[in-house]
Amino acid sequence: MALPRIEHLGIAVRNLEEANALFEKLFGHPPYKTETVEREGVSTSFFRLGESKVELLEATREQSPIAQFIEKRGEGLHHVAFAVDDIRAEMARLRLAGFRLLHEEPVPGADGKIICFLHPKSTNGILVELCQDAEPA
Amino acid sequence: MALPRIEHLGIAVRNLEEANALFEKLFGHPPYKTETVEREGVSTSFFRLGESKVELLEATREQSPIAQFIEKRGEGLHHVAFAVDDIRAEMARLRLAGFRLLHEEPVPGADGKIICFLHPKSTNGILVELCQDAEPA
Repeated sequence: MALPRIEHLGIAVRNLEEANALFEKLFGHPPYKTETVEREGVSTSFFRLGESKVELLEATREQSPIAQFIEKRGEGLHHVAFAVDDIRAEMARLRLAGFRLLHEEPVPGADGKIICFLHPKSTNGILVELCQDAEPA
Repeated sequence: MALPRIEHLGIAVRNLEEANALFEKLFGHPPYKTETVEREGVSTSFFRLGESKVELLEATREQSPIAQFIEKRGEGLHHVAFAVDDIRAEMARLRLAGFRLLHEEPVPGADGKIICFLHPKSTNGILVELCQDAEPA
């Protein structure tokens, strides 16, 4: 199966601390980690939900993608990430199938992953992320 | 655990047939079912992804919630549903915790479920659905 499961669902929030408290009440358990990804201009937290996760994202600077998203659309569902076993093979498959990839090569993501985004214009308005465990250094 | 897993992710689309073809290319397999829920004014299709699903939703009439969503925000991520074992107990727990529920009692949903929505104003702008297998008649 090409995309076997939802790896995580990304949610844009204005204030990570307040959102962590809200989603802890909703899910019934706290985030298992928080992490800042300076390259992307985000602070993140992760909640485990079965084989998937929910990732909350707060912008760490103006003009970062999350800050722009919130300015335009408000807080809410931002992206969905699908787990893949071989990200380069999936990128080649999807490129051939006509999808627009935002990266030529996988880039480092949060939570020990290498990732690639697909352009929402080629995926019904949805920002789709492919997500593979990073290879050991 | 209160909300143990993502049951499905709902995606608003303009044309279900075209979207089915697109997501079949993305996921690498076709939807396992399609279903119309007249009460909600939607035609839906479901793709299996591990322990979760992706649900595509096309409006069957103007002024239905999906038609209004697309008119305002365009196609894209619409709601996220979490599986619960005891929906009435979860509704009571979340009501006490300050969340705003859109139903007093569970209502029938697609794919053999009883469901309840939480108001996005109480959940960081996200339309959240609780989802339990319907009790046998």
